[in-house]
Amino acid sequence: MESTTAAYSITIKVSLGNQPGTLGRFATAIGEAGGNIAAIPGFEAKGPVVVREIDVLARSPEHARKIIEAVSELRGVSVHDWWDRTFRLHEGGKIEVNPLCAVADAQDLAMAYTPGVARVCTAIAEDPALRHTYTMARNLVAIVTDGTAVLGLGDIGPEAALPVMEGKALLFKEFAGVDAFPICLRATTPDEVVESVMRIAPSFGGINLEDIAAPAAFEIESRLIEALDIPVFHDDQHGTAIVTIAALVNSLKLVGKALSDVSVVISGMGAAGVAIGKMLLDRGVGEIVGVDRIGAIHTGRDQMNSTKEWFAANTNPERKMGALSEVIRGADVFIGVSAPAVLTASDLRQMSSQPIVFAMANPEPEIRPEEADGLAAVMATGRSDFPNQINNVLAFPGVFRGAFDVGAVRITENMKSAAASAIADSVDVEDLDPRYVIPSVFDQRVAGRVAAAVGDAAVTDGVIRSP
Amino acid sequence: MESTTAAYSITIKVSLGNQPGTLGRFATAIGEAGGNIAAIPGFEAKGPVVVREIDVLARSPEHARKIIEAVSELRGVSVHDWWDRTFRLHEGGKIEVNPLCAVADAQDLAMAYTPGVARVCTAIAEDPALRHTYTMARNLVAIVTDGTAVLGLGDIGPEAALPVMEGKALLFKEFAGVDAFPICLRATTPDEVVESVMRIAPSFGGINLEDIAAPAAFEIESRLIEALDIPVFHDDQHGTAIVTIAALVNSLKLVGKALSDVSVVISGMGAAGVAIGKMLLDRGVGEIVGVDRIGAIHTGRDQMNSTKEWFAANTNPERKMGALSEVIRGADVFIGVSAPAVLTASDLRQMSSQPIVFAMANPEPEIRPEEADGLAAVMATGRSDFPNQINNVLAFPGVFRGAFDVGAVRITENMKSAAASAIADSVDVEDLDPRYVIPSVFDQRVAGRVAAAVGDAAVTDGVIRSP
Repeated sequence: MESTTAAYSITIKVSLGNQPGTLGRFATAIGEAGGNIAAIPGFEAKGPVVVREIDVLARSPEHARKIIEAVSELRGVSVHDWWDRTFRLHEGGKIEVNPLCAVADAQDLAMAYTPGVARVCTAIAEDPALRHTYTMARNLVAIVTDGTAVLGLGDIGPEAALPVMEGKALLFKEFAGVDAFPICLRATTPDEVVESVMRIAPSFGGINLEDIAAPAAFEIESRLIEALDIPVFHDDQHGTAIVTIAALVNSLKLVGKALSDVSVVISGMGAAGVAIGKMLLDRGVGEIVGVDRIGAIHTGRDQMNSTKEWFAANTNPERKMGALSEVIRGADVFIGVSAPAVLTASDLRQMSSQPIVFAMANPEPEIRPEEADGLAAVMATGRSDFPNQINNVLAFPGVFRGAFDVGAVRITENMKSAAASAIADSVDVEDLDPRYVIPSVFDQRVAGRVAAAVGDAAVTDGVIRSP
Repeated sequence: MESTTAAYSITIKVSLGNQPGTLGRFATAIGEAGGNIAAIPGFEAKGPVVVREIDVLARSPEHARKIIEAVSELRGVSVHDWWDRTFRLHEGGKIEVNPLCAVADAQDLAMAYTPGVARVCTAIAEDPALRHTYTMARNLVAIVTDGTAVLGLGDIGPEAALPVMEGKALLFKEFAGVDAFPICLRATTPDEVVESVMRIAPSFGGINLEDIAAPAAFEIESRLIEALDIPVFHDDQHGTAIVTIAALVNSLKLVGKALSDVSVVISGMGAAGVAIGKMLLDRGVGEIVGVDRIGAIHTGRDQMNSTKEWFAANTNPERKMGALSEVIRGADVFIGVSAPAVLTASDLRQMSSQPIVFAMANPEPEIRPEEADGLAAVMATGRSDFPNQINNVLAFPGVFRGAFDVGAVRITENMKSAAASAIADSVDVEDLDPRYVIPSVFDQRVAGRVAAAVGDAAVTDGVIRSP
């Protein structure tokens, strides 16, 4: 059975009679209905009843309604109101635009707006690089999507993608002080996306591409990198790759294998899978075999696209063929960015000794940790309710923080690699454990370390704006 | 000689010897150099010297440097550092993007981001109108420019326009709690602007067009109003018209004339001039004559464009011809949105009794208030350093606040007219004076009154989103 989650949680506003046992009956009823009480604010019962708002985790909207029904019947308990916490949280959106300076009097207005602002405009017109000094662009990322590959939901369109992009903006600011703004594009071709981003670029200092379907995303990213003189970063590719490599580096320390010796199977040839493969190649991995819905990617196979052709030409030197269950034999590492339940316990038994399994399909992984228990030496997923959550939020805030801090004009391979190493190094060697190969997303040291490493790499690579 | 202004002000960080007379010598030197001390923080002199940061208003960067030189020579005075206050204020930009909710733990993350956010996305995909409930779009305006007509600076391009758009965003939030975000477009045709705005519209709840050259701006606005189901407002047209009409309504009360009886000359046939003319026609003004660089706009004239053809067909029934100095004879009202010093004192003497003169060219008005003194019954400008500043900030924040509060899908003529009346009514009748026909931009009641009036008009006009 699914576990309860904050994603389906509710707040119940309830009055409880001030007689012994009322709270106990209430809590018991919620437990018997399968709910979990997440928070009860302090009870200081003085009058005949106490009114409280109590958060309860549920499994689904239907489950939440059953919980409400269960407590509504209880003696001494009266439900005044209840609401869905997730929808309530999203009401009115999750980000706002705030002033950084006052406009309290005529002097403020004369400097921030007319006539003083004309001086700043004129300075930028004369030297366009000054926009990185005197405007918000210095610290501002556009989070750009066309809504074609949103979470696991697919092509839901730009309007419906906005809550995700707002959430991402929230994480950029919270974790690294980067201002980020969602641009959800009603665009139907890669050309339109590229053209739109080039047109709005004057407002921004960086572009984070997000939830754009592959292979269009590859073309869009490479054309924008070519066209613009600000960092362009497709998070579904490089963010995922950076965090995956970080987790892999630490996992290999635990099993005592070298990256150059291991054989890796990547399930899923979308944006993330391809980027992980490229980054592993750059790091000199022993062997990579990519697998899509049809089976192993190898030269000469049918049903390819240009990206898969590239992948075939640069990986799988032994031309392994067949289904995942065949090519997984003898592999040291499984990396899944594909679909639920494509990997089985018996597949794990066919892998090399001490197999490493990253099952990152969301929300349902390629194999559930319970099934892999005792078989995988290290198990990681994309979920917060299991150990070793591989979450892009460990990477993207620090990557842009570092790029902005040094005035980087692009994100190089070395910068991404430095980010991966900084994340891996954030787990102290003495703390390293099969259940702790990657720092918590709430580890506040990570973004700063990633930023410093990315900035240093940008300076080394000479990709910074001249001062 | 130009007066000193905060726009050209500097901060001088200075140490002053703690002997009697040092501060006096310092202040005297600044005064003799033509500077104005704007602020001296509290002096509590205990040691042998006091170090203070002192704000000084100047006339120009050269003037600021002369002031620095003048004080650097003084006995007992040592200048440690100084900086331009306007440029310092703009460093790093003037707005930021902030979270509206916490992401402090896994529960927060599960609601604001994955997996909970997918529920909100799905809800919007099923019912797109829900984006006005569950996203930032509900309260968010895009401030869109192509940088072709920025302040009085002309076509300085989108990057250099950004400081103005940031300033506008700041005013939207500060005066009416409206989130606003600058979109500076690298676009070269009206088609490109329209197309770009339509593509980014899914992120926004309203569009404020800004500093786009006429006549392109007219076409862009009307096409976007047609294409989008959110309010589209070209502030250079309608914002200026609303505030001008408000000032005119109050001015006419002072001179005891009715709008239906007066003859108005509008100098300048750009975005603002045309919009003012249209709004005056809607309100049943007696007579309008438009004037451009060539002279009066009348049917059959040369060097027209489609907007001026429309203007000729709908105004100037007597087909007055000739230069401004000719058509101004006998007029009751002069409204200038054109160029410095096109109106003279002798022109004013040719006007009807108790002439009303709005000289709004920025920064140099069509006639300076000193010249009009004793001739105009009411004089207004666009400047903050003279009485009666006609400033759009009195209109645009409240217009969008009102539109958002009721879920308006467009801005109607009635909504604009209601905004003008609300601004006019914000000057109490007993306070009405030739030097006070329009509220201060810092009058905090205005935006709320405009919002209420605009919202009511939207409801009356039936242009609100169905709940």
